[in-house]
Amino acid sequence: MIKVPTARPLPLPTWPDSADAALSLTFDVDAETGWLGYSRFNEIDYSKWLTVMSDARYGIVRGIPRILALLDQFGIKGTFYTPGATAERYPEVLREVVAAGHEIAHHGHLHIRPNLLDRDGQREELVRGIDALETTLGVTPTGYRAPAGIMTPETFELLVELGFTYDSSCMGDDRPYIEEYEGRSILELPSHWSTDDWPHFGWNLDSGTAGPADQDAFVRTWMGEFESTLEEQRHLTYVMHPEVIGRGYRMLALRELLERIRDSANVIYLTHAELAELVAPAGIDSL
Amino acid sequence: MIKVPTARPLPLPTWPDSADAALSLTFDVDAETGWLGYSRFNEIDYSKWLTVMSDARYGIVRGIPRILALLDQFGIKGTFYTPGATAERYPEVLREVVAAGHEIAHHGHLHIRPNLLDRDGQREELVRGIDALETTLGVTPTGYRAPAGIMTPETFELLVELGFTYDSSCMGDDRPYIEEYEGRSILELPSHWSTDDWPHFGWNLDSGTAGPADQDAFVRTWMGEFESTLEEQRHLTYVMHPEVIGRGYRMLALRELLERIRDSANVIYLTHAELAELVAPAGIDSL
Amino acid sequence: MIKVPTARPLPLPTWPDSADAALSLTFDVDAETGWLGYSRFNEIDYSKWLTVMSDARYGIVRGIPRILALLDQFGIKGTFYTPGATAERYPEVLREVVAAGHEIAHHGHLHIRPNLLDRDGQREELVRGIDALETTLGVTPTGYRAPAGIMTPETFELLVELGFTYDSSCMGDDRPYIEEYEGRSILELPSHWSTDDWPHFGWNLDSGTAGPADQDAFVRTWMGEFESTLEEQRHLTYVMHPEVIGRGYRMLALRELLERIRDSANVIYLTHAELAELVAPAGIDSL
Amino acid sequence: MIKVPTARPLPLPTWPDSADAALSLTFDVDAETGWLGYSRFNEIDYSKWLTVMSDARYGIVRGIPRILALLDQFGIKGTFYTPGATAERYPEVLREVVAAGHEIAHHGHLHIRPNLLDRDGQREELVRGIDALETTLGVTPTGYRAPAGIMTPETFELLVELGFTYDSSCMGDDRPYIEEYEGRSILELPSHWSTDDWPHFGWNLDSGTAGPADQDAFVRTWMGEFESTLEEQRHLTYVMHPEVIGRGYRMLALRELLERIRDSANVIYLTHAELAELVAPAGIDSL
Repeated sequence: MIKVPTARPLPLPTWPDSADAALSLTFDVDAETGWLGYSRFNEIDYSKWLTVMSDARYGIVRGIPRILALLDQFGIKGTFYTPGATAERYPEVLREVVAAGHEIAHHGHLHIRPNLLDRDGQREELVRGIDALETTLGVTPTGYRAPAGIMTPETFELLVELGFTYDSSCMGDDRPYIEEYEGRSILELPSHWSTDDWPHFGWNLDSGTAGPADQDAFVRTWMGEFESTLEEQRHLTYVMHPEVIGRGYRMLALRELLERIRDSANVIYLTHAELAELVAPAGIDSL
Repeated sequence: MIKVPTARPLPLPTWPDSADAALSLTFDVDAETGWLGYSRFNEIDYSKWLTVMSDARYGIVRGIPRILALLDQFGIKGTFYTPGATAERYPEVLREVVAAGHEIAHHGHLHIRPNLLDRDGQREELVRGIDALETTLGVTPTGYRAPAGIMTPETFELLVELGFTYDSSCMGDDRPYIEEYEGRSILELPSHWSTDDWPHFGWNLDSGTAGPADQDAFVRTWMGEFESTLEEQRHLTYVMHPEVIGRGYRMLALRELLERIRDSANVIYLTHAELAELVAPAGIDSL
Repeated sequence: MIKVPTARPLPLPTWPDSADAALSLTFDVDAETGWLGYSRFNEIDYSKWLTVMSDARYGIVRGIPRILALLDQFGIKGTFYTPGATAERYPEVLREVVAAGHEIAHHGHLHIRPNLLDRDGQREELVRGIDALETTLGVTPTGYRAPAGIMTPETFELLVELGFTYDSSCMGDDRPYIEEYEGRSILELPSHWSTDDWPHFGWNLDSGTAGPADQDAFVRTWMGEFESTLEEQRHLTYVMHPEVIGRGYRMLALRELLERIRDSANVIYLTHAELAELVAPAGIDSL
Repeated sequence: MIKVPTARPLPLPTWPDSADAALSLTFDVDAETGWLGYSRFNEIDYSKWLTVMSDARYGIVRGIPRILALLDQFGIKGTFYTPGATAERYPEVLREVVAAGHEIAHHGHLHIRPNLLDRDGQREELVRGIDALETTLGVTPTGYRAPAGIMTPETFELLVELGFTYDSSCMGDDRPYIEEYEGRSILELPSHWSTDDWPHFGWNLDSGTAGPADQDAFVRTWMGEFESTLEEQRHLTYVMHPEVIGRGYRMLALRELLERIRDSANVIYLTHAELAELVAPAGIDSL
């Protein structure tokens, strides 16, 4: 039988404040890094496609401020998965994120897809990312999400070796669980494409796969996943990108989603670090 | 004239219980097999893309239990097209499916697309799949659906040779009929992309062709096909994948669909084996 | 300046029966030919992909009968662009189309994209298509629509040489007009992707570009183009494929569209041949 | 750190006439040029795909007249980004645009993507485009939008060297700002894919990535961005193509959008040249 990773379920905790369900708003602050990292392995040097660079930068200039204001309005703390190179390029903006009390987690250094790197290359990406977040923001990340959501066996091994508390790259459940591979295990706070803003809104000359969703369909889809979450009193992670969700009409849609959620149930918003603390069992490798 | 397969229509039976129409809920339990089978013929070894593996596994961990609960709630028996390797990897979950009275049918062993294999390779896939289902679940499948819906002349010949009662890979009608090729014939219980959940919801880095449909559009589309079915008092097969339909908000959509169908007509749900028995004429090869 | 084709507008006629606008329902009866023609120039031999063949055949088995019934119900005569090889393979079904008073027009012989053929190859496709329609159906087509909508300079020249009255491959207007190239001209009864069913509903493993549209969005889009047509008192051609529009829920959508059109204005339905007669000026090459 | 372009924000001006927000309707008059320019670097000679040529020409024959009538009805002056070769091929139509008081801006000569050209090639495209607009229309463009939205370092340098007042290729903000690169700067009047009609409606055999959006979803999306604009009292640029938005049902949707905007706020429509004058600071290179 071909060897594949396995999973171990975790019991759902009682949510703080008698909440009916728990949510996490997470943001992958890719900015230019996704394109620059991709350019290393492709013919196009995207650093010279000024338009693409500007679209990526939009997440920093417009997306983050709007997101910070919205989170403040709703009293929510979010988790910002930040490539090290993004922190180095935009230290002030990211320091505002930290100052507002949000969590900073690891999202590679130059957002290089792990499958394009050997073990040493992956290690360098991880260590440089940690260093950049520590040096620039004074933060040591305890959680990780793989660039493009691609985790390999080497990534898994390195996350354990480097002492990460949790990972948020896998999709094997919609509740926190333990991902296991080759005798190692890590606390998994799962994500999924259907609650990621890119498959709904993403579009550019090279990789957009569909026209931008209309915002009503988007709200309906994400509200639908919330209703399932509420019914099961479980947890739900939304994955967003400041350059995607940060566009004007999409921020209005996100605000509408948060209002509708607020009006329909007693929910608690947790950063991924807070969630990890609530659900993590003793004795797994990643702790 | 280039030789192509042909079809022979069958009369619609009188549905049991004076039902106005008949429906079959079918589930392709691909889990990791689709990716692993694909890796044999491509450069990427998906067994090392842990994220992809986890998304595939979701169908087993979350999809199947939700599906079993929903079918139980509505008193419906479904047909689970199960690759042999899935049964070997998750025997307990599949035994629960059997124990709940659902049908197990054949869906390849490692979900290898038949067009990628020669006759011997296809034969091995079929025989190993049968063996795995018999050994693991104690079930001998009488029906078959080709992985990725790709049936070749060799597949057709082998299905007849191995004595399958029916096939559910072709799309030449929306009522049961006889598919004919090279003098052989088999009872066909047809499927179609428009009543398959993947073209509506499927998305991943490599092959998603559109953003996830919103659930209202999905329910409307499938409800529309049901209305046509009801008008013609025919049969309708829905094709689903536990890792696709099994996501939270999609299961709510499926529940809504089943409720709306229940409220609008007197329908009967049949497994494909039950349907085959109702409609099959005597004397075709596949019987 | 790079040489490109040009256009000459035509005055809109007064519609018969004091109609406010005129519509044409057209059907490209591709059946298996599109796949078989494509296989000549590609590695995959689709005649061996039995599932694909069966999906294509659906248009004949289910699509055409439903379409004939619907047209009869509304008292509409349509235009069926029929590849010669389709007529040869399914002469009885196409004879029913003729017997019901609908127009048969030319759509290649094996539906080979003209750009894949040199002038001789294109000539053969055209002549074989004419022969097949004459021999099988006793009909000499006066109009043409290029397979996949790809008309080349050779096609244009051959249409004029062979004495076709009109073409329906181009998209340079939404009213009948004269398409001109290299001193030749032909009466053009234009089509467009947005009023073609394939971009809305088409999906298969190889070329579907989006999940199937939901039928409400489809009706809304086509109703919108009708409203524009009505406002301008012009003509509108809908392009459909029996294997695409002929699916159950889509036929219900088409019926709804025709009902809504009927309820909102006094329109006249014309075959393309009837339209050509109404609008064609004297002295163009194609007459 | 990899060198990328940067941005400098500009203060929002007080809008004339006490308007709550400002909008610009812009049209990229590609016509055949996009296909012809593309053919220079690809195997297919699109000048011989007569259907594609006719679809492109539709923007001139049908799109522009409808757009001019609509703008006149609403008393709006727009900005027409016009490739030089389009002006040369259709001088009369473009002169009508000028005569109606609209702005003509630069959009390359043969709509060749800048990344496909070296510095000399780009210079030639820019200079030929300017010459064509001056010679044919008597207009010297002061603004530029890169074909396919691809601006390279060479383009940036040349825009400054040739004295352009503003650029509208980048996406780094949704308010006018200063784009900076290698010590140069230019006034940027940004655009974005989500307010571009192509990702919503575009479809053809070669590059359509999704079926045509239904017009309600389109209006909802663009109205959503307007609501965000109004809330922030900022500026918004819509990007359209006459061959895309100019289709009948899409023009009805655009009209509905303009009506809904008119009914919901006091907005002012500015050409990009007017906007540039309002917001441009002294002393940047591009002035």
